[in-house]
Amino acid sequence: MATAPRTQQVIDGIRSRIAARLLCAGDRLPSVRQSAARFGVSPATVVEAYDRLVADGVIQAVPRSGFFVSHLASAPAGPAANAPRRDHAIDPFWVSRQSLDESGAVAMPGCGWLPADWMPQAALQRGLREAMRDPANLLHYGSTAGDPALRRQIALRFAGEGLVCDPDRILLTASGSAAADLICRLLLRPGDTVLLDDPCYFNYQALVAAHAARAVSVPFGPSGPDPAVFAAVVAAERPRLYLTNSGVHNPTGGALALPTAHRLPGLAAAHGMVIVEDDIFADFAPGRPTMAALDGLSGVIRIGSFSKTISAAVRCGYIAARPEWIDALADLQLATGFGGPSPLASAAIGHVLGQGAYRRHMEQLRRKLDRARRHSAQALASLGLTVSGADGAGFTLWCRLPAGLDSAALAQRCLAHGVILAPGNVFSPSQSAAPFLRWNVAQTSPAALDALAKAMAAESAG
Amino acid sequence: MATAPRTQQVIDGIRSRIAARLLCAGDRLPSVRQSAARFGVSPATVVEAYDRLVADGVIQAVPRSGFFVSHLASAPAGPAANAPRRDHAIDPFWVSRQSLDESGAVAMPGCGWLPADWMPQAALQRGLREAMRDPANLLHYGSTAGDPALRRQIALRFAGEGLVCDPDRILLTASGSAAADLICRLLLRPGDTVLLDDPCYFNYQALVAAHAARAVSVPFGPSGPDPAVFAAVVAAERPRLYLTNSGVHNPTGGALALPTAHRLPGLAAAHGMVIVEDDIFADFAPGRPTMAALDGLSGVIRIGSFSKTISAAVRCGYIAARPEWIDALADLQLATGFGGPSPLASAAIGHVLGQGAYRRHMEQLRRKLDRARRHSAQALASLGLTVSGADGAGFTLWCRLPAGLDSAALAQRCLAHGVILAPGNVFSPSQSAAPFLRWNVAQTSPAALDALAKAMAAESAG
Repeated sequence: MATAPRTQQVIDGIRSRIAARLLCAGDRLPSVRQSAARFGVSPATVVEAYDRLVADGVIQAVPRSGFFVSHLASAPAGPAANAPRRDHAIDPFWVSRQSLDESGAVAMPGCGWLPADWMPQAALQRGLREAMRDPANLLHYGSTAGDPALRRQIALRFAGEGLVCDPDRILLTASGSAAADLICRLLLRPGDTVLLDDPCYFNYQALVAAHAARAVSVPFGPSGPDPAVFAAVVAAERPRLYLTNSGVHNPTGGALALPTAHRLPGLAAAHGMVIVEDDIFADFAPGRPTMAALDGLSGVIRIGSFSKTISAAVRCGYIAARPEWIDALADLQLATGFGGPSPLASAAIGHVLGQGAYRRHMEQLRRKLDRARRHSAQALASLGLTVSGADGAGFTLWCRLPAGLDSAALAQRCLAHGVILAPGNVFSPSQSAAPFLRWNVAQTSPAALDALAKAMAAESAG
Repeated sequence: MATAPRTQQVIDGIRSRIAARLLCAGDRLPSVRQSAARFGVSPATVVEAYDRLVADGVIQAVPRSGFFVSHLASAPAGPAANAPRRDHAIDPFWVSRQSLDESGAVAMPGCGWLPADWMPQAALQRGLREAMRDPANLLHYGSTAGDPALRRQIALRFAGEGLVCDPDRILLTASGSAAADLICRLLLRPGDTVLLDDPCYFNYQALVAAHAARAVSVPFGPSGPDPAVFAAVVAAERPRLYLTNSGVHNPTGGALALPTAHRLPGLAAAHGMVIVEDDIFADFAPGRPTMAALDGLSGVIRIGSFSKTISAAVRCGYIAARPEWIDALADLQLATGFGGPSPLASAAIGHVLGQGAYRRHMEQLRRKLDRARRHSAQALASLGLTVSGADGAGFTLWCRLPAGLDSAALAQRCLAHGVILAPGNVFSPSQSAAPFLRWNVAQTSPAALDALAKAMAAESAG
């Protein structure tokens, strides 16, 4: 928005009076009429200038009193206030904080999302513009279960993988994270035990802790947990929930072997454990077996979202489960959030999914990621890392460092150069993944590889 | 989006084959090339037609296999699946369910929001379009504390009412409801006691229940609670939190008298109780005293949102509190939701607030509501209701029915005619508000008044 010259003249005049301390914090500005006379402009121009100064935080409007110089006018503004807290210890939140609050990071191979230009930006903008036309999408709370059209589209996606699910058994949520959280609210009590994979999506650990529950874990190999080990852990620990990924496992890139996917729901049911299968990465590897489809949503709850494939800003998650759980979850969502996703988000996502743009985008994206995975795997191997998942799916590789190197130490060194890594132990409930890194192949760059190489050399030397 | 005639021809052709059972659920459709030859159109036209059929739920795409007739193709679509559950008992969720899931209600004087044409629709659309230009707003998770520019604008609003608050002490949340919920997560343990007003915003009761806490209440009169009664309840019940509204009290339209606002924070502090002051209606009555400003955010937490004044679809809430609480709340928000508001929402709201459009909108809206309150109060008084709040602020009136009438019974009768009321007891922890209705003056219509009059006559008769 360009500012008209006369408006800018008033803005500059007021700003310079503040800078010169002719107007101080708390002082009342001249009235609109007085300023109009003083600057030789129309009252409308002064109103516009004052509005811009309010927007910039220089002055503030006090109803029925006028405009005042802000107490914050001289405070530092902008990103500095939001800089990452670099002194935090490396805990499960470490990667989130660093990558969400980065400002001017050189590279983020540790982050868990794709760069903006790998996302279906134009289709999403079209979807939002289309959705915005309906005042209900723009202004109102959504319905308690969420947009019926989008729930229907999700049911169709499920049908494509062999999971028959009536749209009434789907609840839309604010996000995939919110979906997992709602289920924890419904099914967990403080002190309950939750089974996680080792390694697993780091935020599951934080979620379990937020519910005052106890995490236990089962090793997750290239084809999932070993069913015998899984059975032994479940029998010994009696977890209430098992939180895991379908499709591409985060962070290893692995996937459940079909016999394992077939076996785990029965083992869970035998011990009263509910499986929560998070399919947020499923569209990166369509056709992989899901426990939800094999189990038919009896003791398995399917959750997911579009944050990794459409947008992490326009969020909408979902839960597919037994009808009585869906009803209870909808009530909980109403009690704690007064609803789920923005109707603007669910309508926009519906447009993206519905126009065929999504299917074409994902086909292209999978090909692009295949190339990026191979290229990154070669580059990392040439630095001495042992890479698994290069011929898999998704956008991350699970890499073992050369003997003796600790990924947390490398992450701290790289952070000092603006490169954010994801050290293995943030994903490991048992803290047994210190020699590993999760690497985002869409964020590979010479700067990232160079920082890693230098950090490895420095750690090896010292 | 108009459909080109040739595309429509293919769509109609496929649909009629399904209707005639020449293609059945699960059948594979002809390939794009085959259909192009059969219909005499280009392959691109067939692709477009198939995409539209996928969007409409008639067929589904299975990666690497083709297109199949949907199992849901003959299932009823659309709003029916989402119709309100009319058989639910009247509980604190009743009004939410009925008004959120209404489809084709005649009138909703019981709902808690303004009609679309009373909202700053054009300013919000401009704000969204402006925000959408930045790929970070469109595609990425937001920062952990939320948009620094919006936090700064909120701090300036606070400054206008005498509350000095550094933007770093403000956390943006997904909504005002999410703000209250996060605070409950941080400060409540199961079995704790929460103090509510009687009557109060109905969803506070659901929120307290969702946290396995116990609600106690204090009567809320036209100038707030009686401080002596408040002190006695706090001393006897030892609540951990007091959840209340500043500005306009929901549902009574009352407000804290200045001496009461001055006194309650000290009473709370003396008993280790934290006050959560929800200012979601504050901009309807600027200048009313707030406990947060008097207390300086020591033992009072200020929360709010823009859902009642900008949009309930593009949601963003906030929490202003002690720095150590803000840090802990940000971590909890990360653990349970992987972030707060959509950056698209916070940027769009920032644009609306910043352009002066919001201030002008609210000035006009308050004048419009003053007229609507007077008009509605007269109409309701002529039906025999005793109305309080007509010369107050906000968009609801708190109305006492003529002796002997029960508001829940009237609400059930009105619902049968598509008119949604808010019966008093959904707001009352002690269930002592059966003779009251909350009435939304922006939803007053001849149909609504007529339904109420008829329901009153029918109840009086039988």
